[in-house]
Amino acid sequence: MPAPDQAETRRIALIAGNGSLPGQIADALAAAGREFRIIAIKGEAEALTRERADAELGWGEIGRLYNFLKTSGCRDIVLIGGVSRRPDFTSILGDLGTLKRLPTIIRALAGGDDSLLTKVIRLLEDEGYRVVGIKDVAPQLLASGGVLGRVQPAKDDWRDVELALKATEKLGELDIGQAAIAVGGRVVALEGAEGTDAMLERCAELKRIGRVRAKGRAGVLVKTAKPNQDLRVDLPTVGPRTIDLALAAGLAGIAVEAHGALIAERDETLRKADTAGLFLIGLDRSQGAGVADQ
Amino acid sequence: MPAPDQAETRRIALIAGNGSLPGQIADALAAAGREFRIIAIKGEAEALTRERADAELGWGEIGRLYNFLKTSGCRDIVLIGGVSRRPDFTSILGDLGTLKRLPTIIRALAGGDDSLLTKVIRLLEDEGYRVVGIKDVAPQLLASGGVLGRVQPAKDDWRDVELALKATEKLGELDIGQAAIAVGGRVVALEGAEGTDAMLERCAELKRIGRVRAKGRAGVLVKTAKPNQDLRVDLPTVGPRTIDLALAAGLAGIAVEAHGALIAERDETLRKADTAGLFLIGLDRSQGAGVADQ
Repeated sequence: MPAPDQAETRRIALIAGNGSLPGQIADALAAAGREFRIIAIKGEAEALTRERADAELGWGEIGRLYNFLKTSGCRDIVLIGGVSRRPDFTSILGDLGTLKRLPTIIRALAGGDDSLLTKVIRLLEDEGYRVVGIKDVAPQLLASGGVLGRVQPAKDDWRDVELALKATEKLGELDIGQAAIAVGGRVVALEGAEGTDAMLERCAELKRIGRVRAKGRAGVLVKTAKPNQDLRVDLPTVGPRTIDLALAAGLAGIAVEAHGALIAERDETLRKADTAGLFLIGLDRSQGAGVADQ
Repeated sequence: MPAPDQAETRRIALIAGNGSLPGQIADALAAAGREFRIIAIKGEAEALTRERADAELGWGEIGRLYNFLKTSGCRDIVLIGGVSRRPDFTSILGDLGTLKRLPTIIRALAGGDDSLLTKVIRLLEDEGYRVVGIKDVAPQLLASGGVLGRVQPAKDDWRDVELALKATEKLGELDIGQAAIAVGGRVVALEGAEGTDAMLERCAELKRIGRVRAKGRAGVLVKTAKPNQDLRVDLPTVGPRTIDLALAAGLAGIAVEAHGALIAERDETLRKADTAGLFLIGLDRSQGAGVADQ
């Protein structure tokens, strides 16, 4: 193990939303000997996250948040886990520290076309904090390149991988979705606002009603990051539920971007993929050669 | 009216599938004084089409088809209307003329990546027939450029038109779908194998569950032809049902490609759009200026 540089010795604040990812990041940080504090988001963080949290804060408690960050000596922040409920304005009108910053907050949230999270990042950075991502603090949680489970893709699968990958690249150019499905040499579904899970459910329905036909298990879900996606807060993710839905859609496998996508609950996900006979691969686009040569 | 050239005096065979389009084409041809014969596809053509048909033939009756074309003096063919049931092999194993041509038919249908209809066209052309499209025989049925109904798009609508149009162009490059929906400056749905109607239903659902948000009526469905789409058999089409679904999805309007898309049941469709307060526009891409300048 290399000697930790200065950045690696900085204490990290995990601001934790829902799901099991905050816990996984905490485990990875603990295993790496990193110092960290967990701030659970009220009404979002799971019981398991809240149990090990150092603080629990609601949307309106921005004053308390900054106080906590200051007293705990955290200058680096990881925003992790999902947020299912959008804060409304009344829940934002919280503590004194929030009110004091309200003009700045409103200016930041109201302006521009960026996503809510991008604006939150900017607010934190304006206060002198550094927002980092999983890639920075726990890169071992990202998908590696190559075949990740025990099932190997067949030749036809590589053709579908290539087609769906091209489709996600076009989607990315337009900043639309992250995922596409190709079956039997044809792109059959593209992700819009519905998200990957709903797209997989649609694909299952298309097969059921015969609008997509395939002999046996066929087709690939490809999920990649958009070119201007902020990977610190929005990482393409597949997990156990993705495997279930890909199986229900009759697909042969799943491909994600190596080093740019997360396998949530990795052991469980890979076990499920192996059991279902689905391949799961990491595409290393930095290697240039492309998937067609495989 | 210009003097009819030789092509315009040729007798046309309408091979009619389901829906009301075959009847509309027949009306348009009759109004233009063109000579034509109607061949209803068994199990597909509507009662109204069958009533005025000169012949009714099943998938396996290719021998009878060629005989009919020969004796009726039709050298030009229009394939029009939908086909909901794919012929299976037993229904193809029909008359003697079919059997005689079976090696050619199988060779044509089995080879290459083209669609079934493209292959059917090639078969007909190999026998010396010319397959033409609505554009050739009844261009007045295609959408014209500009605002087609009584409702005018607002400034924000033009932005959504431009965004969704860009998305359909990318889809076209990949030969995937014909349609996209943008709402509030964001592309939210892209058409894959599910088709336009199902995509509109999805958009309604996305609004219902709050995954797509808009104040009041907002957003545009854009439907264009793919660059390599054979407009003789596969014309982007909107009709009364498209209006119903666009209304249910809370959209502000619909844009199609001028001279490259069909408004099915035009009067009914425009009446519905006007009543619903939806705009319906034809985008004239050949004029180059683009929609942003509107």
